[in-house]
Amino acid sequence: MPQHIPFAYERVEARIASMISNGLIRPGERVPSVREICVSDSVSKATAMQALCNLEARSLVFARPRSGYFAMASSRLPLPTTPVAHLEPREPKLSPLVARVFADVQNPATMALGAGTPHPSLLPTAELARSAARAARLHVEDFGRYPTCEADRPLRREIALRLARVGCEVSPEEVVITNGCMDALNLSLRAVASPGDTILVESPTFFGILQMIHSLGMKAISVPATCIAGLDVKAFERTLAKHKIAACVLLPSFGNPHGACVSEEHRQAIAHIANKHRAPIIEDDVYGELAFDGRRLRPLKAYPNAAGTILCGSLSKCLSPALRIGWAIAGCHAENVRRMKWISSIATPHITARAAADYLQCGGFDRHLRAMRHTLEQQTCCISHAISEFFPEGTALSRPSGGYFLWVELPRHISAEKLGDAAIQHRISICPGPIFSLNGEFENCIRLNCAVGVEQNVQEAIATLGRLAHEQAASSFPHAKRPKAKTTTR
Amino acid sequence: MPQHIPFAYERVEARIASMISNGLIRPGERVPSVREICVSDSVSKATAMQALCNLEARSLVFARPRSGYFAMASSRLPLPTTPVAHLEPREPKLSPLVARVFADVQNPATMALGAGTPHPSLLPTAELARSAARAARLHVEDFGRYPTCEADRPLRREIALRLARVGCEVSPEEVVITNGCMDALNLSLRAVASPGDTILVESPTFFGILQMIHSLGMKAISVPATCIAGLDVKAFERTLAKHKIAACVLLPSFGNPHGACVSEEHRQAIAHIANKHRAPIIEDDVYGELAFDGRRLRPLKAYPNAAGTILCGSLSKCLSPALRIGWAIAGCHAENVRRMKWISSIATPHITARAAADYLQCGGFDRHLRAMRHTLEQQTCCISHAISEFFPEGTALSRPSGGYFLWVELPRHISAEKLGDAAIQHRISICPGPIFSLNGEFENCIRLNCAVGVEQNVQEAIATLGRLAHEQAASSFPHAKRPKAKTTTR
Repeated sequence: MPQHIPFAYERVEARIASMISNGLIRPGERVPSVREICVSDSVSKATAMQALCNLEARSLVFARPRSGYFAMASSRLPLPTTPVAHLEPREPKLSPLVARVFADVQNPATMALGAGTPHPSLLPTAELARSAARAARLHVEDFGRYPTCEADRPLRREIALRLARVGCEVSPEEVVITNGCMDALNLSLRAVASPGDTILVESPTFFGILQMIHSLGMKAISVPATCIAGLDVKAFERTLAKHKIAACVLLPSFGNPHGACVSEEHRQAIAHIANKHRAPIIEDDVYGELAFDGRRLRPLKAYPNAAGTILCGSLSKCLSPALRIGWAIAGCHAENVRRMKWISSIATPHITARAAADYLQCGGFDRHLRAMRHTLEQQTCCISHAISEFFPEGTALSRPSGGYFLWVELPRHISAEKLGDAAIQHRISICPGPIFSLNGEFENCIRLNCAVGVEQNVQEAIATLGRLAHEQAASSFPHAKRPKAKTTTR
Repeated sequence: MPQHIPFAYERVEARIASMISNGLIRPGERVPSVREICVSDSVSKATAMQALCNLEARSLVFARPRSGYFAMASSRLPLPTTPVAHLEPREPKLSPLVARVFADVQNPATMALGAGTPHPSLLPTAELARSAARAARLHVEDFGRYPTCEADRPLRREIALRLARVGCEVSPEEVVITNGCMDALNLSLRAVASPGDTILVESPTFFGILQMIHSLGMKAISVPATCIAGLDVKAFERTLAKHKIAACVLLPSFGNPHGACVSEEHRQAIAHIANKHRAPIIEDDVYGELAFDGRRLRPLKAYPNAAGTILCGSLSKCLSPALRIGWAIAGCHAENVRRMKWISSIATPHITARAAADYLQCGGFDRHLRAMRHTLEQQTCCISHAISEFFPEGTALSRPSGGYFLWVELPRHISAEKLGDAAIQHRISICPGPIFSLNGEFENCIRLNCAVGVEQNVQEAIATLGRLAHEQAASSFPHAKRPKAKTTTR
């Protein structure tokens, strides 16, 4: 058989693949562009493109619109195990660990790998300050009034316009501006459910939701959600068929804590099932704008028969946590949500709504989002790689395609709580797994926030965490070696 | 007996008294100053002073610090009857009338005699806008962070300093900034009570509190409060002795709806009784700064053994409703309140807290408060007088010494709800009495908001309300005459 003489594109492909595999180009870093390849390899544009497409097909690189191609982590850890379901409604357990997470957030000297706080360098603070100052100057009379629907109309319009772009058509009149997304979730829960009612949640889910359900005297029942597909649709249907559920709080887009994204097919099924069982969905869409590839999936609210779905979102994760601008788009529950808002805080300040509208109208939001998604992906990639490098064997890791978080499952005998205690001594905050559970499971899991500044040395912080995990493992099994996390090649 | 030749001061006194009685000087209007009297009556300063002091002793005029003397309403209606107590805890009734009150607030064409909204002309809007713009410019980095305790420290300090001036010493660390006072009340209730618990309230009381208790799945029990003395202290003690009370929501300073102010002696007793029965007080002090005579009474929180008292206040009634700045000072419950705040909305925006602190630090607040109290008193006086002029016989009226509100008890057969329906056709909003009650009583009462602009013709609005009340009375008793409200001379 004659020896295969490689085509030009194959030579280029092999050269870049080897640069990635030997670490010359690190995960998340840009690989040479088409133009650069044309020059360095003396090939045509078509050849360079072919090489990059093949590398993408081999999952060695990934494309980012208008930015080029970037190196993927060369190896990946296995996925965390699927959580078990809790078959009976119960009062969520109030973990004392949550208080520590709050405390860590307040300490500026800490590397914030714990709470879901974006690093200020990721956000357009100067533009926002200008918008706020302008809003104050232009709407002087507003300071003397209770904020009315007039003051936040421009913002409600901007929100409706953005949703219309992804096929979710809502009227600005339906949008209730809230004090961030937590407020929106609270108001929605209070609008559709009463103390004693059962709320369906994902497992694992954002601990704030569990705390909220507890504080409102409600019960919760959980449905497993995996790191890739998100909510287990069959278990969801079984639970709704068996129990009287007052509301389902779901996070279909880059859910918290593991960043799963529910497919369009599953979204359709979920909306259909909830409607069939007349269980309103409260959809937490706070990370919806942060798909790494910029592709915003249609929220559940946009599917047929989703009039009972309340879409909750905010600008806190993608623009500014300080403005405290969120919203609840409540369809047939809108009147109730509005009443709950009045009962719980009358109104939101006009100045923040005016500032947000001013910023959104100025047109820089999409550009900002592109840059922010890029950084988030890069940092997620970098942290994932560092985990595979430094964490003990048996570590499993989620593979988010958007949002802030990585969900790390450590070997069984490592306690997330103890790891958190040790980490905070090194000024690193993490979120221990049990707070994401109804009954304190996920004891060996942690959630890591990847929305850290690019100038921050996350590599070093992850190395420290890995060392601490190894130390804990060694104190459990003093004679074990310190192998690095075992990876699976894709 | 020789005829008494009047002293000079008696001549002056008689002349001014007659100007008031024949309507030349109307209630709330300024009477001639000492300087003016000296010139017009050719008397000494001491004589002019003596005349004014005598008029004050006769309750024909009242003094306002640094502003001079003003005419009192020449006659007064009787006080509304004392409400009855409800002896068993019950779920507050959700009145559909509340929705109408909200709707009316949103209509700028309406004369806002209904909801407790201040007219923008009473507030320093231009100064606030400048403070907000400055805060935005000076704290750019804040826009990229979740608001921390750092961002609202200056405001918490200002609040603590103001309270210290009236003998209520709290640490700035104890102050939790909230999204207005409603938020503070909500968080406080959720911090100390759970669904199913019983909350003690006044009767009548602010309808927002009843709605809140209902929405949290709690029950309420009411203790009568009169228009002058406020809470019935003996009934308060009996109720606490008989029932398990999770919290008492009280409004000791210019309470809503009738503007009563609890004396220092009663405050001491209330604080003592609540402490004895270990029932935390949630003190709504939102009108505390608005005593007509500028005398701020010490809040319940300042009395001995009041560690369990949560003092809730806001800037909404005395500075700006738009900023949505309130606070809860929670003593031993502070940690719980903070946790509830996190669970319900994470944080309040930094920009409004910075703007408020900037305004308070600039030093114009006390000057503004003096002017605002003055206007409030004048409008309250003017509306009281118009009511005695235009309302049907049998009308009774509260006599507030601060705050926004007049509580009007109409003759028994007049329905406040129907009066409200008729009034809104004339673009006048009022608050119907039943919403201030646990079970829909006060059917013939209304609450009127006196925080209206000085340029607004309240006289005319009250005349319209009076005519509508007469029409309703006439349709009940078609052959009756239309006598004006019978007044009692002080």
